Amino acid sequence: MRGFGMHTINDVGWIEKSRPVCGPLDAIIRPTIVAPCSSDTHMSHGGSGPKTNLILGHEAVGIVDEIGSAVNKFQVGDYVAVPCVTPDWLERGVQNFNSFSHDTGGFGSFKFLGVKDGVMAEFFHVNQADANLAVIPEGVSPEAALMSVDMMSTGFHGAELAEIKAGDTVVVVGIGPVGLMAIAGAALFGAGRIIAVGTRPKAMEVAAAYGASEFVSYKEGSILEQIMARTDGKGPHKVIVAGGDMETFAQAVLMTRPNGIISNVNYFDVADKVSFPAYYWSLGMGDKDIRGSFCPGGAERIARLLDMIKYGRIDPTKMISHQFKGFDKLPEAFELMDKKAPDLIKPIVYM
Amino acid sequence: MRGFGMHTINDVGWIEKSRPVCGPLDAIIRPTIVAPCSSDTHMSHGGSGPKTNLILGHEAVGIVDEIGSAVNKFQVGDYVAVPCVTPDWLERGVQNFNSFSHDTGGFGSFKFLGVKDGVMAEFFHVNQADANLAVIPEGVSPEAALMSVDMMSTGFHGAELAEIKAGDTVVVVGIGPVGLMAIAGAALFGAGRIIAVGTRPKAMEVAAAYGASEFVSYKEGSILEQIMARTDGKGPHKVIVAGGDMETFAQAVLMTRPNGIISNVNYFDVADKVSFPAYYWSLGMGDKDIRGSFCPGGAERIARLLDMIKYGRIDPTKMISHQFKGFDKLPEAFELMDKKAPDLIKPIVYM
Amino acid sequence: MRGFGMHTINDVGWIEKSRPVCGPLDAIIRPTIVAPCSSDTHMSHGGSGPKTNLILGHEAVGIVDEIGSAVNKFQVGDYVAVPCVTPDWLERGVQNFNSFSHDTGGFGSFKFLGVKDGVMAEFFHVNQADANLAVIPEGVSPEAALMSVDMMSTGFHGAELAEIKAGDTVVVVGIGPVGLMAIAGAALFGAGRIIAVGTRPKAMEVAAAYGASEFVSYKEGSILEQIMARTDGKGPHKVIVAGGDMETFAQAVLMTRPNGIISNVNYFDVADKVSFPAYYWSLGMGDKDIRGSFCPGGAERIARLLDMIKYGRIDPTKMISHQFKGFDKLPEAFELMDKKAPDLIKPIVYM
Amino acid sequence: MRGFGMHTINDVGWIEKSRPVCGPLDAIIRPTIVAPCSSDTHMSHGGSGPKTNLILGHEAVGIVDEIGSAVNKFQVGDYVAVPCVTPDWLERGVQNFNSFSHDTGGFGSFKFLGVKDGVMAEFFHVNQADANLAVIPEGVSPEAALMSVDMMSTGFHGAELAEIKAGDTVVVVGIGPVGLMAIAGAALFGAGRIIAVGTRPKAMEVAAAYGASEFVSYKEGSILEQIMARTDGKGPHKVIVAGGDMETFAQAVLMTRPNGIISNVNYFDVADKVSFPAYYWSLGMGDKDIRGSFCPGGAERIARLLDMIKYGRIDPTKMISHQFKGFDKLPEAFELMDKKAPDLIKPIVYM
Repeated sequence: MRGFGMHTINDVGWIEKSRPVCGPLDAIIRPTIVAPCSSDTHMSHGGSGPKTNLILGHEAVGIVDEIGSAVNKFQVGDYVAVPCVTPDWLERGVQNFNSFSHDTGGFGSFKFLGVKDGVMAEFFHVNQADANLAVIPEGVSPEAALMSVDMMSTGFHGAELAEIKAGDTVVVVGIGPVGLMAIAGAALFGAGRIIAVGTRPKAMEVAAAYGASEFVSYKEGSILEQIMARTDGKGPHKVIVAGGDMETFAQAVLMTRPNGIISNVNYFDVADKVSFPAYYWSLGMGDKDIRGSFCPGGAERIARLLDMIKYGRIDPTKMISHQFKGFDKLPEAFELMDKKAPDLIKPIVYM
Repeated sequence: MRGFGMHTINDVGWIEKSRPVCGPLDAIIRPTIVAPCSSDTHMSHGGSGPKTNLILGHEAVGIVDEIGSAVNKFQVGDYVAVPCVTPDWLERGVQNFNSFSHDTGGFGSFKFLGVKDGVMAEFFHVNQADANLAVIPEGVSPEAALMSVDMMSTGFHGAELAEIKAGDTVVVVGIGPVGLMAIAGAALFGAGRIIAVGTRPKAMEVAAAYGASEFVSYKEGSILEQIMARTDGKGPHKVIVAGGDMETFAQAVLMTRPNGIISNVNYFDVADKVSFPAYYWSLGMGDKDIRGSFCPGGAERIARLLDMIKYGRIDPTKMISHQFKGFDKLPEAFELMDKKAPDLIKPIVYM
Repeated sequence: MRGFGMHTINDVGWIEKSRPVCGPLDAIIRPTIVAPCSSDTHMSHGGSGPKTNLILGHEAVGIVDEIGSAVNKFQVGDYVAVPCVTPDWLERGVQNFNSFSHDTGGFGSFKFLGVKDGVMAEFFHVNQADANLAVIPEGVSPEAALMSVDMMSTGFHGAELAEIKAGDTVVVVGIGPVGLMAIAGAALFGAGRIIAVGTRPKAMEVAAAYGASEFVSYKEGSILEQIMARTDGKGPHKVIVAGGDMETFAQAVLMTRPNGIISNVNYFDVADKVSFPAYYWSLGMGDKDIRGSFCPGGAERIARLLDMIKYGRIDPTKMISHQFKGFDKLPEAFELMDKKAPDLIKPIVYM
Repeated sequence: MRGFGMHTINDVGWIEKSRPVCGPLDAIIRPTIVAPCSSDTHMSHGGSGPKTNLILGHEAVGIVDEIGSAVNKFQVGDYVAVPCVTPDWLERGVQNFNSFSHDTGGFGSFKFLGVKDGVMAEFFHVNQADANLAVIPEGVSPEAALMSVDMMSTGFHGAELAEIKAGDTVVVVGIGPVGLMAIAGAALFGAGRIIAVGTRPKAMEVAAAYGASEFVSYKEGSILEQIMARTDGKGPHKVIVAGGDMETFAQAVLMTRPNGIISNVNYFDVADKVSFPAYYWSLGMGDKDIRGSFCPGGAERIARLLDMIKYGRIDPTKMISHQFKGFDKLPEAFELMDKKAPDLIKPIVYM
């Protein structure tokens, strides 16, 4: 079969492979729509070290094409959303207080990106199908379902991690797709005022639709000073970090009130250093909780997000800025994501 | 001064009293708008035993008319929302893990209804003004602020108590003002599907606007059976009880899934008995948590709710079904609340 | 192979069956020590309806005798503790916020008692061995490990469910093995004063060793009045119910302070009715949380409890009041548990 | 009256001041025993900038000598423990989800050290006595009570912040008095294995008595490598930081497992920089929660700790390594704390 991925670092293109093999608990999916993600392009540039001949992609919806002999809940032909994080539920790690993202240790539940071939192919493999596939319910479009498997789950998780209380003032740093879903999540989980940090007009428009109360731009001076000025010197209760650099992260720590939370869902680079003066963190005693988390895994998570779409709490398709028709357009969509055009939020490719 | 209240059980009317005295930490408020509540009418019929010559009312916004010598944060002339629950913050109870409603024990923080004269008067007294008054911020109407001091706080608390997770299916029993705010709260804290139990057309319309996905009516058969049928026999993750009788409560216990929560914000009568077969509660081992809570106290709570209004998360004035102009209309508004006309949700009285 | 169980209601004895079949993810265990439990005897009397020809027992340690083709973490010959609750980790229910006890719904993860043959046999079956077996670590005796698989896990869970805060006053109702472990758990999770309700001298002695501060006896008058008198009329912060009847349960609700928790780990009978006056529960608004939970499932739970034993936090073997040597003594041990002799706490049988 | 404190930076000695004035809600205490703390000596060296003519000390028990006109719960002559953190309960900050340490912002509830004169004097002032004093109960020695007001409260809080689950493996960095109480707290809140980092023999002996399972010394190589080796490369579930430098802190982040917590109760210097490579923190996505908190404030906290002492859960007097008799010994005790002799844990001075 044909897939799209990296031949080696900085060299992407078509890859010919044999169709993946379906174990007794597993399923093989034929994707109908996929979405390239910035972590795919990041990997193609060597972000996780040298990988060769690897099909990329971890966001897909599709049709069940084959099921293992021990799969009970799905049939060939079912139209499913595939969580980007698919834990091995027989690993001890998942029993450890909702650590569904780290089955065997850090990121262990993330099978697609690098561990095995991804979803940008004619077919792809899903482990433990009964626990890791979610049927797309009536009333939810495949496009909306596609947005749930990573962007919505990760962005919402940024808001969940921030343990938003009724009326919290929340800052969201970054208005890429994860930041947008963090804004929507903050609004959906009880925030009062939401201050978004970002400058791109198209994304700002969508951010406002998802609940951002106002915007702050680094082009107009220090983010920190602007936010402190807007909050009478008190700062926000919570900051969700979905973009920015390490200086922004340090400022997020400083601006947060005592008993606040800095919730990170930004993927740092292996060369980055987390660094801030101790007094930014109230000398270690200010009850400012610094958290960083990974997209939760498993089917139940996605089923719940699909229900939120179905019952009208959120329309994640507002993020879809570019649509490509046909498998052959994958390289073009991938390049668009890699270049990050100003009007880009999220591209999708109909297979 | 003049106030409206109960002379004795089942005998309400005007009461003449001297203006309340302002202690050093306290404030005297001149109400501008008040809202009668069903707990006021309940008390007038002897719901809390024989009370005589007592001014009723616990929902008000108004102007600070006098402050005590030790009050720092307010001035005469400030326009404030007054929480219906005003803890004594020097009591040990408030230090006990957010038990702000029960300063000296059960309901201790509820000072207005029965402990002292209420808000339906020319002036009323607020203890510890610095901690128990919230300035109405720019962008929030006094009418909206009035809805926050009990209805919105109590209804939202029903949803908070239910610890709603992203995509939960939530049943809300009752679509009076507390039930409506529980629906809005459920939607604002992350619910997916919200099934409301209620039949009054005007309230159903408002409930739909606040986020109810669908309605179930006791007139069309067993609530329990209807809800189980609509949820493929699984039942809801959470039930918020804001109405109904003890049979409905028992059904709420039965319908809730394992690891679910039954969250009660309904005020039971002293003659009621909580009663259900043990198997409704999975023989005591089904991880179905039965909670019942009281409106949280203090100014910070109300300030947060006012922020949610200010930033457009909720418009609680949709609940205001009847408006009366003038202090002299208090008896009429009170009677309306007592009789509970079919199109009544919440009446307010401009003083 | 030979096993001990119920031929039919009220008729226990030896049962001849074929050795259980080992699926690819499963294991077959040869038990070395088992412990009859009161839920075994309860079932033998028809507590869960008519069962025939069923091997009983759900508390065992033993040797891995056979593993399925897909088992990775265990080998034949490993000495293991077997959780009494062994979820199917591929079921969606386990993904639902730590609901490891209810994989497919209420009690779904409890496979041994009634769903399939139990552990009182030459061999027994464990589903999904990698996720449901725990190696007994060096420094932990098999007898101690045996106490962890149900009694310690369930009793501790009663304390966990009570969310004990540093210095809480805790009442534990019942000093059978679950009550004793609830006492130990309360002490290990931060309680201050622990008031135990119970009368049997041998059990009281062990309860004191596990941390009970004092004892209250129903023989000396109302439990409720005694406890209120001892706590200056305030009552406990938390009550763990591990015994008593429905009247005691109602009293537990009444005695608990606002913002308190009633934590039930008592298995009610299908004929029981939960019932108490609404004012016991502060008319539904006293922030008294009524919880009832089932023993948590899976290997990680047991591994953690074994670590607590290994590092000297608890010695659960103090509960072992009777020891029987030899498989043939199973009927005698079972009868002892059924009759509940005054000096009985927990019998074990070396196979 | 006479007190001991800092004339200016690096110049401590006796200070003559007038007796503090008692406001209507306040109390004046005559201390009977005080304990110098390293934060007192730190301040004397300019740790919080230039202070002049300031009485130091924030750990005391004593006799109520005067009460304000509005104090209801205490009388002259009561023997009380005084929390080192005494919030202004009328400030809005305390209403903000248990932020009792930060009434008006960071550290706002810490009144003694620097904001006003401290406890090392003939008399000292306590704000809002009803809410900030705890009577020493029968069965608790004044010495034990003295240990509760800061060391026990802060150290236990390190364990509370780590949200210890049954059987967690916990590393505690530092075995000074706060570290010792973190060890005791970890054991009391459910830890399994506790690995302490420290080298001083006297403190190690006490640490073992409080529950440390084993010790790791920086003198024997990298702390990180030793701990990873002892935990089969998995690291601890939780790390409580009560000592060490910024390099140790970074190692704490690295060693913690996914879904773990790094809980800091170490007071960093204003010149310190928190700094670690992003991959120590799993590139921001490893669900490793970095927390830092301050001693909780108020009387209820101390009353609960006193109950834990009373009911035998902990004997904090094991930490008292040096006793001085007489007010005049304050300089000697202070110097001992400043020099940190090898056998020093905690000195106390009988006034």
